[in-house]
Amino acid sequence: MHSPRNARLSSKASDEKGSRPMTNALNSIFNARSIAIIGASNDPAKRGNQAIRKLRADRYEGTIYPINPKAPEILGLKAYASVLDVDGDIDLVLVCTPAKSLPSILDQCGDKKIPGAVVLAAGFAEIGPEGEAIAEATLDAARRNNVRVVGPNTNGVFNLHNKMNMVGVQDVEPGNIGICSQSGNMMLAFVTEAKRRGDLGFSSYVGVGNQLDVNLAEYLQYFGDDEDTKAPIFYVEGFKDGRTFLDTCRDVTQKKPVVIYKSGRTEAGQVAASSHTGSLASSFALTRGLLKQAGATVVEQSDEILSIAEGLSKLPVPKGGRVAILADGGGHATVTVDALVDVGVKLAELTSETTEKLRSLLPAAASSVNPVDVAGGTDDDPSVCADCADVILADENVDILMIIGMYGGFAARFNPALLDDELETSQRIVGLSKSHGKPLLVQSVYAALRTKPIEVLKESGVPVFVWPEPAVHCVSELIAYAGARTRNATSPLVVPDGPVADGEKILSKVTGEDRDAFYEHEAKDLLTAYGVNVPGQFLSRTEDDLAKVTGELGDAPMAMKIVSQDILHKSDAGGVKLKISGETDLREAYREIVANARVYNPDADVHGVLVAPMAQSGVEIIIGVVHDPMFGPVMMFGLGGIFVEVLKDVSFRALPMSRADAHEMVEEIQSSEILDGVRGDLPVDKEALEDLMMKVSQLALAHPEIKEIDLNPVILRNDGYDVVDARMILNSKGH
Amino acid sequence: MHSPRNARLSSKASDEKGSRPMTNALNSIFNARSIAIIGASNDPAKRGNQAIRKLRADRYEGTIYPINPKAPEILGLKAYASVLDVDGDIDLVLVCTPAKSLPSILDQCGDKKIPGAVVLAAGFAEIGPEGEAIAEATLDAARRNNVRVVGPNTNGVFNLHNKMNMVGVQDVEPGNIGICSQSGNMMLAFVTEAKRRGDLGFSSYVGVGNQLDVNLAEYLQYFGDDEDTKAPIFYVEGFKDGRTFLDTCRDVTQKKPVVIYKSGRTEAGQVAASSHTGSLASSFALTRGLLKQAGATVVEQSDEILSIAEGLSKLPVPKGGRVAILADGGGHATVTVDALVDVGVKLAELTSETTEKLRSLLPAAASSVNPVDVAGGTDDDPSVCADCADVILADENVDILMIIGMYGGFAARFNPALLDDELETSQRIVGLSKSHGKPLLVQSVYAALRTKPIEVLKESGVPVFVWPEPAVHCVSELIAYAGARTRNATSPLVVPDGPVADGEKILSKVTGEDRDAFYEHEAKDLLTAYGVNVPGQFLSRTEDDLAKVTGELGDAPMAMKIVSQDILHKSDAGGVKLKISGETDLREAYREIVANARVYNPDADVHGVLVAPMAQSGVEIIIGVVHDPMFGPVMMFGLGGIFVEVLKDVSFRALPMSRADAHEMVEEIQSSEILDGVRGDLPVDKEALEDLMMKVSQLALAHPEIKEIDLNPVILRNDGYDVVDARMILNSKGH
Repeated sequence: MHSPRNARLSSKASDEKGSRPMTNALNSIFNARSIAIIGASNDPAKRGNQAIRKLRADRYEGTIYPINPKAPEILGLKAYASVLDVDGDIDLVLVCTPAKSLPSILDQCGDKKIPGAVVLAAGFAEIGPEGEAIAEATLDAARRNNVRVVGPNTNGVFNLHNKMNMVGVQDVEPGNIGICSQSGNMMLAFVTEAKRRGDLGFSSYVGVGNQLDVNLAEYLQYFGDDEDTKAPIFYVEGFKDGRTFLDTCRDVTQKKPVVIYKSGRTEAGQVAASSHTGSLASSFALTRGLLKQAGATVVEQSDEILSIAEGLSKLPVPKGGRVAILADGGGHATVTVDALVDVGVKLAELTSETTEKLRSLLPAAASSVNPVDVAGGTDDDPSVCADCADVILADENVDILMIIGMYGGFAARFNPALLDDELETSQRIVGLSKSHGKPLLVQSVYAALRTKPIEVLKESGVPVFVWPEPAVHCVSELIAYAGARTRNATSPLVVPDGPVADGEKILSKVTGEDRDAFYEHEAKDLLTAYGVNVPGQFLSRTEDDLAKVTGELGDAPMAMKIVSQDILHKSDAGGVKLKISGETDLREAYREIVANARVYNPDADVHGVLVAPMAQSGVEIIIGVVHDPMFGPVMMFGLGGIFVEVLKDVSFRALPMSRADAHEMVEEIQSSEILDGVRGDLPVDKEALEDLMMKVSQLALAHPEIKEIDLNPVILRNDGYDVVDARMILNSKGH
Repeated sequence: MHSPRNARLSSKASDEKGSRPMTNALNSIFNARSIAIIGASNDPAKRGNQAIRKLRADRYEGTIYPINPKAPEILGLKAYASVLDVDGDIDLVLVCTPAKSLPSILDQCGDKKIPGAVVLAAGFAEIGPEGEAIAEATLDAARRNNVRVVGPNTNGVFNLHNKMNMVGVQDVEPGNIGICSQSGNMMLAFVTEAKRRGDLGFSSYVGVGNQLDVNLAEYLQYFGDDEDTKAPIFYVEGFKDGRTFLDTCRDVTQKKPVVIYKSGRTEAGQVAASSHTGSLASSFALTRGLLKQAGATVVEQSDEILSIAEGLSKLPVPKGGRVAILADGGGHATVTVDALVDVGVKLAELTSETTEKLRSLLPAAASSVNPVDVAGGTDDDPSVCADCADVILADENVDILMIIGMYGGFAARFNPALLDDELETSQRIVGLSKSHGKPLLVQSVYAALRTKPIEVLKESGVPVFVWPEPAVHCVSELIAYAGARTRNATSPLVVPDGPVADGEKILSKVTGEDRDAFYEHEAKDLLTAYGVNVPGQFLSRTEDDLAKVTGELGDAPMAMKIVSQDILHKSDAGGVKLKISGETDLREAYREIVANARVYNPDADVHGVLVAPMAQSGVEIIIGVVHDPMFGPVMMFGLGGIFVEVLKDVSFRALPMSRADAHEMVEEIQSSEILDGVRGDLPVDKEALEDLMMKVSQLALAHPEIKEIDLNPVILRNDGYDVVDARMILNSKGH
């Protein structure tokens, strides 16, 4: 739950710590040169014993101080009654004692100027009111003493490059993948999978536990700064600090990919997650849109998280998204092409020069267009595979190369004497990827058997996959990451200077009348103030005002709508009349609308009738802005009617956003083809649409007191748009 | 390519073989007691040497006859100049000699009464005209000599239960999964994956090669009859015998699941596949719909084929689709629930009795509703896990149980002394699955490490998965299989007795006038003849005919449409007028329509004007029937307009179909919610819709000479439907 208390404390914390950036404290934790184990024990079943044994087994190079007031010695090390009894500096305490001991322990840490504590105990907010009180006292103590707390209710942290493993997982190798997880079991799953594969290692891990103090955004900052981490994995059940996380993510992804699995995506999943943590999840579609906007790699299958992180950690960022395939045997190539098309990746079109060169290298039966199939042309000479790879990588139309099928099995399959050639070919392939500066991935049946030529590839940083789909998904995420990085680096977030004068005037009118909701004409006037083209509209307070309408617009057909705070469903109230022309008919319709309203709700305060020309036909869309409790202001875009209501085909971005974000919102919806013109219609004016979205964004940012904006529908035409209806609601009366 | 030649030959073959069902021949091949190796060789690099070595290494129990006119002895076995020189019976020949040798070899096989030949050589139809001639001569020889040919251009067959491995793959264990593949490499991928896992085995494999003689349907029949195969996998690039395959599949899936991966799903993938085989693929959406109708399990990720086949081969068929989860630790449970919801699987609602019992077994912090989370309640006593499983499996609301998270790691994680308890718990879990007769699957992080308690589960037939998603996909396919099996067993295919008299009359009229296309009123009359409610319609051949219309229908608004074979796009020709009331206006509209038609196409033969009452508003749908070149008559269903044209949201079934098929077609489209009533609309009359689909199906089957039927649109209402437009086209003038 995102409680105001947390929000306040978290911002207070960053204020108080102005002179000591939080990443320094996390750095002290992960790179601690001295660790005190509070609750150190001689009982081998206790964490206060296991942690010390593991540190020593791994030859941790810093100093370990067992803290136990009752034992003079733990596992042969001198024990201390408290951290205050230790002479040297302490960078980190691992607290193995129960929840209620925390406040006094943190006081001691403060006295000793210890920057960080990892707290294993459960029994805080997740157990109810009693635990909440302990949590509050603990947090107060942490703030007071300037100690950053990891957890509580965490299974610990490790930094394998610091030989510091305080989680107790065995046989895990140092490497370049970081893990930040709201589930200790998921970390165990990654580590175990790596152990099974035998060729993947990790940098640091943190189990975030209850996020009492340090939050996900701060961990992300640490992983972003940590040179040993090439790609951090975040397993997130719920954000407590969504907006800060997005901002941090936008920065970090300029340096390295960030791989996120957001669990509790479905309503049922959220219930399962809530019983596990205290966080409420915003809708997954919204969260995914915002994370992608911030440059993150959002993975939706847990079994692909690790391989995607591995690929992104190893591969250079491609210049574009055109993929070439070099295959031996059709089956896997076909599966690969199907999978690429499924995720929208483009196949490279090889130049005729490349095709010619491949023809000269390969037998007549081979395919020398993409996907290239060697058709047995490498069976007795693996080096031909490297020759082909060289030719393909040199092609200016190729951004990424996938070697698909059976690579690494020449000796195993055809002739053991080929092994030396094959090993040399592996070395050449590694070199080619580097010299051409383009990503190269291998999918091979023989990856499962870890043959020597496969091992050479892996050891030199070429990602190797057993099946095509995980390789394809890695490629598509790599392309998406490259695109997002460029987008965020080149298309700036657009922020208004502040509210325009006309806008402030309208706002004061609404708040002055102590209203939550804008009248439709006010909402449209506010849009006009921010440069949005709104069709002419006339608020008729009396029937006689209608003369002005026909005076200005003549006999064009008009739409007429009741204006009243007390009538929400205008059509139900008989408050809408369409296609009315000429003063006589307008007057009659006016009288009917007002009369209907009186019948519908005798107490309704009728403000007048809004008259506007009928919109031309076109494609109905919806643009909305809401204030998400986790992420702040968010824009939604979708096609109108059933596309939003039934198919839920919408896109989301956090505000402020860039013009490129608006463009991606438009292209991202599944039914976007409709905007390009179907059944003989002309395409809609997408420039004007994106322009409109940017203006609504400016309006929303300039007036944060508006909690909801709903342009529904806007009708898009080939030459512009009509805002047919607009609703705006203030955040509890403008305050 | 599905050439008429193949169609003819294939049907001729089954005629000729009436007295000897083809499965007997395949049985002789896979269960051969004596094998002649044609092209046997002393050169260890040749298949004619390797095959003999492999058979002997595996202790093949039948007789091996090396055939080589030049060598007296091969690998110590007496060699023969030809099969005719062998004294004993020969069940199978493995032909290792080149393509052109085939016809004379098959003649010898005929003389020797050998029922089957496996032909490795390439160089047949896939290399062009020269190869096509050899292929034709080979097929003629096979027919003439009553020899069934596997391949050519196959990498061979194996039946591990017969200790007959003529593919040469090493270290593959006998088991219950069959493989039939159009790509030898895909078989190698499955076998290699099984080797990596070390706990999966296979029954028989066949590489179908060019399918010159034996086709996919016949292999499916073999696997259906083979008692050693519990679940065959089919990797298919293209069907040559789609309709027969569907029929066979419908039979076989009553006995066992059939797992199919159809590659070349996308247009680009089809190109990649075509360069590999000679088959053209029909659209994947169509193929998938038809295969599912026939009871097949269609897998769309190649990396999940094997685990789904494994699960289906081991698990009992569930009675329903309600899944319970028993988890230790929230992370994997949340991922599992998300994945279940993603694929539309329902979570079981546990009875209060079950919840009470679980509460008494588990600590207070545990979740005793589904998903059940033991919250550490099993950490020091694994047997509690079996206790909980027993309680959950006994619940009448539970059809399937998934044990999720960390099972099998109690000793590894907490305390080595727990191992005995854990092994006993594994045994109990195995027993519970059997005694309750309900499918039970396990997903565990420790599956990757193959701990002993995990191995006990696997050895006793409990499928164990490393990650949640493959487990979930296995469950959803199991539920789908159970549903399809019941559907096909209980809802009969509906076939008409023959054409009705009125129908024949209309057909004769169209063919009598040597037309391909029906006039709209003829199409609607034909629909009426098959019981479809068609709104009253009047064909006015002259303006004066209109008096009848107003005589019968009064002043109701009418739709008027030109009737002419020469005007296809009626609206473009000004040939459509809507909402016309009263005789005067009808007459004027008639004159305009005819005049417009003359301007549009002065040569057009105008047959008249069709007048029908305007349809009431409702939901537009399309029902179509086409004759697919691979699968024969197929019905398509979808919502009208952009849903078909842009979103391609349609469902397909082969005709004849069952009422349950019609129901599934309606429910299967993504936008089916629209039929249930959105934005305040009433739901449409689905009974009437399914009824309409069945009647159109009867019409199409009774008149196979109609190659295309298109009801577009039909307007569905809460109390019925209106067929607004109907088009029918004959198969090349009715012949």
